[in-house]
Amino acid sequence: MAMVDWRPDPLSPLPLYAQIAGYFRAKITGGNWPAGMKLPPQRELARQLDVNRSTVVAALGQLTELGLIEGRHGGGTRVAAAKANRGTAGSWNDYVEEGIHYPNLPAVQAINRLEFQPELVRLGTGELAPELLPGEQMRDILAELARGELPLAYEEPLGSLRLRRALSAELGRSGIQADPSSILILSGALQGFQLISLGLLPKGSTVLLEKPSYLYSIHSFQSAGVKLCGLPMDGRGLMTEGLENAAVRTKAALLYTIPAFHNPTGILMDAERRRELMEKTAALGLPILEDGAYQDLWLDAPPPPPLKAMDQSGSVLHLGTLSKSASPGLRIGWVAGPEQVIRRLADIKMQTDYGASSLSQLAAAKWLEDGCHERHCSTLRLAMRRRRDLMLELLERHCEGLAAWSKPAGGFYVWLRLNRPVPLPKLFRAALAEGLLLNTGDLYDRSDERHLRLSYSYASPSELERGIAKLAELIRRMDRLS
Amino acid sequence: MAMVDWRPDPLSPLPLYAQIAGYFRAKITGGNWPAGMKLPPQRELARQLDVNRSTVVAALGQLTELGLIEGRHGGGTRVAAAKANRGTAGSWNDYVEEGIHYPNLPAVQAINRLEFQPELVRLGTGELAPELLPGEQMRDILAELARGELPLAYEEPLGSLRLRRALSAELGRSGIQADPSSILILSGALQGFQLISLGLLPKGSTVLLEKPSYLYSIHSFQSAGVKLCGLPMDGRGLMTEGLENAAVRTKAALLYTIPAFHNPTGILMDAERRRELMEKTAALGLPILEDGAYQDLWLDAPPPPPLKAMDQSGSVLHLGTLSKSASPGLRIGWVAGPEQVIRRLADIKMQTDYGASSLSQLAAAKWLEDGCHERHCSTLRLAMRRRRDLMLELLERHCEGLAAWSKPAGGFYVWLRLNRPVPLPKLFRAALAEGLLLNTGDLYDRSDERHLRLSYSYASPSELERGIAKLAELIRRMDRLS
Repeated sequence: MAMVDWRPDPLSPLPLYAQIAGYFRAKITGGNWPAGMKLPPQRELARQLDVNRSTVVAALGQLTELGLIEGRHGGGTRVAAAKANRGTAGSWNDYVEEGIHYPNLPAVQAINRLEFQPELVRLGTGELAPELLPGEQMRDILAELARGELPLAYEEPLGSLRLRRALSAELGRSGIQADPSSILILSGALQGFQLISLGLLPKGSTVLLEKPSYLYSIHSFQSAGVKLCGLPMDGRGLMTEGLENAAVRTKAALLYTIPAFHNPTGILMDAERRRELMEKTAALGLPILEDGAYQDLWLDAPPPPPLKAMDQSGSVLHLGTLSKSASPGLRIGWVAGPEQVIRRLADIKMQTDYGASSLSQLAAAKWLEDGCHERHCSTLRLAMRRRRDLMLELLERHCEGLAAWSKPAGGFYVWLRLNRPVPLPKLFRAALAEGLLLNTGDLYDRSDERHLRLSYSYASPSELERGIAKLAELIRRMDRLS
Repeated sequence: MAMVDWRPDPLSPLPLYAQIAGYFRAKITGGNWPAGMKLPPQRELARQLDVNRSTVVAALGQLTELGLIEGRHGGGTRVAAAKANRGTAGSWNDYVEEGIHYPNLPAVQAINRLEFQPELVRLGTGELAPELLPGEQMRDILAELARGELPLAYEEPLGSLRLRRALSAELGRSGIQADPSSILILSGALQGFQLISLGLLPKGSTVLLEKPSYLYSIHSFQSAGVKLCGLPMDGRGLMTEGLENAAVRTKAALLYTIPAFHNPTGILMDAERRRELMEKTAALGLPILEDGAYQDLWLDAPPPPPLKAMDQSGSVLHLGTLSKSASPGLRIGWVAGPEQVIRRLADIKMQTDYGASSLSQLAAAKWLEDGCHERHCSTLRLAMRRRRDLMLELLERHCEGLAAWSKPAGGFYVWLRLNRPVPLPKLFRAALAEGLLLNTGDLYDRSDERHLRLSYSYASPSELERGIAKLAELIRRMDRLS
């Protein structure tokens, strides 16, 4: 008996044995493999599936536990009889494919998992390298906190007042007037998407956004039954020409935008485009969700004031985070907007996780109050400028003639446009085989075939040198093959 | 012109001015108050609405900002003309009533907010009093952490391996075998409900649970379109007699239970009932979600092993938390179960908040590793036993003849059964007027008219003395009135 043409996928987040067990289980419970059917010997299975024998043993062990197969003395392993259905009915495993929330894209799941393999060069990771994180300053903050009163109890629904006061001041520096009562602390800015999609948007709503967009790589909105409608960008940000049409046609509920150092393109929306956008959305009555995750990370000159700073009528919700500039691990983000909206979101947050870590909130408050954030951002800027310039230099050296790119004025990313389309999943796998972890453009626009999100924030300079050279070689090789 | 019979609700989580603005806004945008209509003077409005004039000023200010009303020189305040619709169409405020997630019950919203008014005696709060939290030990832990490497980056999808290892050992002590790979760190156990309801349950599923139950006071399941079906309890826990019928009739997807020191009744499910439950659910193929939030908080003798410890077939997901025993502010919970299920939940968690605070995770790991948790629970037990005994003594002194109750063997709660039904919302308000914050039974069973969840975990001994005496007086007064 051959196990047909199926093999477990080494890139899947599921371990090989679990994939094999799942495949066998589907065959058995689906009735394809009838009770009493004999399985090939383990060694033969290992050969057919192209895995180690120990993997087969683990898979068969799980199936035996589930009562789906049984070993007989001297008779090999067979599909079990009566238990085939009953044995699994009560298992949580039956629910793994259920539920209304989309799973992450397989490639995103793979990236989430592979990012913890230290030997890989992460050419697209959207976070600061460990050496750029303010470890020492945070240790000082902790040491000081350890000398005072610790907030071990729950915080109020909007989050720590001390942190909201510090954020109110911080936002003020970027031109945003937000009282502490109009700020909600989030367990990371990502949570804002979920709260907004669950708490504010009717099912079947449409969100307008830049295409490509980071938002396409996650599913918070789609899982709440909200549709995405992408609008094109140019070098000055989201193009506003098609906005009215798209808004009217889709009855759009809101516009999501990352005006400062857009993820994944790195594009900075200029002041004029911002004014246009505010005017057009006001005329359309279209609220805006502004993602300011990267706005502190300017490199050459501060960006124009955020959209929220231009907002006179409560039509902008502004998302911010410490994850990109200071510490992802703190899991501290915030959203600022009209009080009534903030309260609604806070109520859902209370039902979701009952607030963010108060330890993190206290550390974040002190981080902002003591001016650490400003000082850290200045230092970081120097290091990031060097990294960006190195990246550009390497691209010029290796990718001339292969791809085009722009110089980002801030943020983490270079949006590399390949001169010729390439099967991106294939490039991803080929790169992985060479020890490179890529964020391919199809994560941010399903139909994309020619972009890579390159990041100069994570890989070390020497990794960048090796990585970009190797990447260029791979692109060249795929160009020749196609 | 009189403002009809409406008044803002002082118990609402919305500030008075916002309620007034909302009410006026609905009148104007709904067309009830036409453009040009003159509003009464501020002083008169304040009288009619029974609020301070400053509240009226704030409300009118918001409406002016929205372009809904306008002041004219010498002409008083009038409903604005053209802008009435346009000015609000693009406002986020329009979405406050939208979205698929239920708002908290108004009473829960009020409680969440009122809990931060320090002068109130909180007779039902489900958390440890500040003086019972291990502030000093946590400071020591922080001080030590400040001397080492801090995890400022993102953690892996399942959460910090160090914490999962510590939890695996901790769970082992209660008889649960769970590898680190079958544990997911949550941002508080509450998050588990959301991940399970979004990630594992098909829409329209039914969850069986004890009635009353804490789960009735939150909306994680309902917001995901999952129905709740309550089963009766006796002094030994969830009654299993009606289980088959209910499971078959509702095609139940899972059973949620709090076997150890149930919230809100305090009931401990005995070992025999646990065995029955495991057998019946196995026969039905009904997975179990076991909430172990209170299991460390036994007072007289350790509880029987958790259901998860009896689970041979991966049919139990076990939820745990540090919030009830050590620190709610850390926001650290966990769920243990079959690896495949844990991975699915982890994937959704990554999309929800990208993991729990790594600072909190590190503190929690150290807390468990160093044996602080065990030592703290022993000390806590002594204090909690004294508090429980005081509560029972006070009930005997003041509530004899008014109500019935049982002695809880652990957890935080006495489930007080009033001898005569009482309008609970009225009792809640009357108590609030006397400075007592109550958790009434209708939060945990919508039709309940005669229970209060009393807690001996939060109010200080002297507050308990005053509070219970006052509560008895109120119940007596309401009895006389009815």
